[in-house]
This record gives sequence, C-alpha cells and structure tokens, in this order.
Amino acid sequence: MGRTVGIIGLGLIGGSMAIDLRRRGFAERVLGVEREPVNASAAEKIGLVDEVVSYDDCIARADILVVAVPVGSAVRMVCDILDRFQEMGTKEKIVIDVCSTKEQICLATHYHPCRAQFVSTHPMAGTEYSGPWAAMPNLFDGRACIFANSEESAPKAVKTIEALYDALNMRPLYMNATQHDVHTAYVSHISHVTSFALALTVLDKERDEKHIFDLASGGFSSTVRLAKSNADMWVPILTQNRENVLQVMDTYIEKMRSFREAIDNFDEDKVRSLINEANRIKKIIR
Amino acid sequence: MGRTVGIIGLGLIGGSMAIDLRRRGFAERVLGVEREPVNASAAEKIGLVDEVVSYDDCIARADILVVAVPVGSAVRMVCDILDRFQEMGTKEKIVIDVCSTKEQICLATHYHPCRAQFVSTHPMAGTEYSGPWAAMPNLFDGRACIFANSEESAPKAVKTIEALYDALNMRPLYMNATQHDVHTAYVSHISHVTSFALALTVLDKERDEKHIFDLASGGFSSTVRLAKSNADMWVPILTQNRENVLQVMDTYIEKMRSFREAIDNFDEDKVRSLINEANRIKKIIR
Repeated sequence: MGRTVGIIGLGLIGGSMAIDLRRRGFAERVLGVEREPVNASAAEKIGLVDEVVSYDDCIARADILVVAVPVGSAVRMVCDILDRFQEMGTKEKIVIDVCSTKEQICLATHYHPCRAQFVSTHPMAGTEYSGPWAAMPNLFDGRACIFANSEESAPKAVKTIEALYDALNMRPLYMNATQHDVHTAYVSHISHVTSFALALTVLDKERDEKHIFDLASGGFSSTVRLAKSNADMWVPILTQNRENVLQVMDTYIEKMRSFREAIDNFDEDKVRSLINEANRIKKIIR
Repeated sequence: MGRTVGIIGLGLIGGSMAIDLRRRGFAERVLGVEREPVNASAAEKIGLVDEVVSYDDCIARADILVVAVPVGSAVRMVCDILDRFQEMGTKEKIVIDVCSTKEQICLATHYHPCRAQFVSTHPMAGTEYSGPWAAMPNLFDGRACIFANSEESAPKAVKTIEALYDALNMRPLYMNATQHDVHTAYVSHISHVTSFALALTVLDKERDEKHIFDLASGGFSSTVRLAKSNADMWVPILTQNRENVLQVMDTYIEKMRSFREAIDNFDEDKVRSLINEANRIKKIIR
C-alpha cells in the first residue's frame, strides 16, 4: 500500500480516524495538521499521528487528505485544496470532508474543475466531547457513513474512500446532499438543540435552588448529555442547516405545545395517546 | 430479623426491590401482590418474590408494605392500607410508597390517624422499561432516595425504612414534598416530556421518509430513550405534578424559541452564547 493520509484537524473525529487508519494498516503514514498549538502538541504526545506538519506540507505529501475541521471552515478549505490540486496538476490525490452538513460543501465544489477528486462523506459517529483528548480507537465501528453526491466523484476515488471507511468498519450509505441534510436535522441536529434547551432550562432554575442536581436521574443525564457539545462545532452546523433545523424545531415546539395543552386541560386521554404514539419509537431505536 | 416485606406492584421498581431486599438479607420473606395475571405468573416464575398473595393477605402478613403502583392508584392504596392498620389496631406495621410525585400523597394522608406509620419515599432509580421482566438486581446502588415530610412519620418507622434503603445502597435525602415535586419536575419529568416530543417529531417525519432512522446517531438514541416510557406510569405523574411541569415546560419552550430566533436571524453570536451557557451543565453532570 504505502499510502500517506493527511488529517487536517486533530479533534475527536480526525484524531479517532488517525488512530484506526494507521493501526489497521490502511495508512502507512498519517500526517496531521492542527492549528491550535496546545492541541498539536497533545496530538503528537499522545501519538495520534506520525508527524504534525504544516497545511502546505500536508497537501504536498499526503495521498488522501481528510478535512476534519468545523463545517464553516471545511467548505473554504476543501475548495482551497481542490485549487491546489489544480495548480499542482495532480490527478491522483483525493480530498474528503467529514462534515455533518453536506449541502453547502457540495454546492460550493460542484463546478470545480477538480470536483472528481473530492469525496464528500459523513461518518455518523461521535461523542459529546471534543479535542485530541477525546479521540479514541474503534469510534466508528459498526456505524453508518454517508457518501453524499458520490456520482460527482471519480469512481476510483470513491472506491479508495470506501476502502478507507471499510477499514473503520463503517457501512456506507449513499444519498444526495439535500436529503442528507433533511435527515440529519431530524435524527441528530434537533437532539442537540433539545439538549441545549433542557440544560438552559434547568441551569436557570439552579440559580435559586442549589441542590436541584442531587436529584438528577439517569434519564436526565441521558437527555442532557449532548448539551456538553462544543459551540465551535455546532454553531456552523445549525447555521448551515438552518432551514431544515428551523422546520424540525417548529414541529417540535408544536408537539411540546400539544403536550402542554393536554396537561393544562387535565386531558389525561390526550396525554396518554401522545405517550402511546411516542412509544412507537421502541420499534425503531434498539 | 425475620422481617416479612410485602410488595404491591411487581414492576420495575417493586420487582427490583424484591430481588435485592431478599438477596441482601433485609427481608426474610418477600410477598408480592400483582393485579395483572400475566405479570403475577411471570414474577413467580422468575422468582422475584417468595409468594404471590392477595392484597388482603399481604396486609395481614407483612411487617412492611411497599406500594409500588402508578402514582394515581398509590394515593388511594396508601390511604386504604392506613385505614386497615387502624381497623386492625396495629401500631407496628409500616407502609411506604415509592412515588415520583410526593405532594398529593402527603396531602391525602396528612390527617390520617395512622399517618405516623407511613413513610413517603422516592428511590431515584429506574430505566425506561417496565413490568416484572424489567426488574433487575443492583438497580438502586449508589442512587439517592428522597424521604418526603419524614417528620410526619414515627422516628422508629423512619429508622426501619432508612435501613431498608441502606440495604439497597441508596443515600437518603430529606425534603418536603412540595420542594421534591418542583425539583423532580426539573430533573426528571421535563426530560420525559422532551423525549416524548422528540419521538413524536421524528415519527411524524418518518411517515414520508422511510429510511430516516438509518442515520440515527448515538446522540439521538440517548435523547429519545425516555420516550419508551410507559403511559400508565407517566400520565398520573404529569397530572399530579401538573403545575410544576407546566412551569418548566413554559421555560423550556421559551428557551427553544430563543434558539429558534437566533438561528432564524443568522445571529451566530447569540447561538454561540446559548450553547456556551448550556455547556455549563458539564460542571454538574459527570
């Protein structure tokens, strides 16, 4: 093989990919780029990558570039890397992104002369933690990885990236970017917003009731867990997927309102039927 | 010791108590009462209790009665059991409840001549599953157990029930019933409502987008987990704690609205500050 993979952004996703791609032999050498000096030296000390290099060096030396930075910067960076490919006259190098939103990045690159060398993916894995310290082996095992608009990429490039995700034990799913963004608004983005809102609600109350968290149950921890998620990652996701997220939020607020009304009206039958309906989620989640 | 404990309602909580109270030697004999024939025979087959008996037999034979039925029925049942104590002229028997709401049950029993023989508790443990099949050993270990208005119970009765929860490895917290209901609205009841609403939102969408759940992330499962919770248990909790729950829901809906507005207005600074504020939950939850 002898493949060199360059990972730009050594956070939870980039760092975890680095660990498994090398350990499992997909990459012979893993280069890392990390803007934050503290994170860069941590990544080197932990041994996430073989070498922390500059952005320019990484593009020059890596066969596959993984852009694993927050989605706002990722759009600009993938375009810049494709520009560099063009300048270098290379047809062999591949760049991929791992963004949680796909429409803008696919739109921005659509007409690029080197579009075929870009494979847009979303490995559906993560935790509420971030930074190189959050990176872990086996993070991706058994989870789904979306390939968005893969018909715009060179078949050979897609094949290589399929092999990359196969090394991470992910199952590929193919869909268009627009469809992806609608779906993730429903099964990921809204969960984060509801957790943030829950944390805000309870923290407000905590101001005057100091011991409120003595009572926090396991259920509360589970629903509020995502509220630990990082603003640098989530502000651009919610902004880029604004329209879908707003639509889901509206449905959600409407559901909360029917619940509120039923409770307010002592309408036990209505509360019961809402809960029974919600219980249908059992068939779907585990 | 030679204590006989009678557990009325062999679901998740009653069944799990039965397992550990006998196994750990607090009870020499555990009697069970279960209205649903299927559950009753399951409880006997699994060996949750030594014997499934009638409600009357249980009251006659047990030294400590644990009322572990949904909160609506629990209020009536505890009153009825105190009536029986009075008729029997016993001063030794104790009845406890394990309800998630405390105000109504404490109010209903407040003037009962045998009030001192009632200890009102809320062991803060559970899962989203219900019925005797959901019962498990060690469910309560390390969690908090609330004693509500314990100054209305006989000190000797409180001491016995403290020993009971000590056998379950729970740490006791003492508070008044009103305060309890406010706190649980914030750190437990609202989590259930937000999960129900999330499930309803996503299930609505699923009607026209069949494959939406292929994308469900671990984060989604975690926030929606409580939506599997049982209506028989949750309708009466939300009804009994109506005023507190409505107040928390109002704050919550307001937080969702500020989020919505910030996203709608492309106000990234506001979204960032809401997320940063929500992140303070880190200090509190693990």
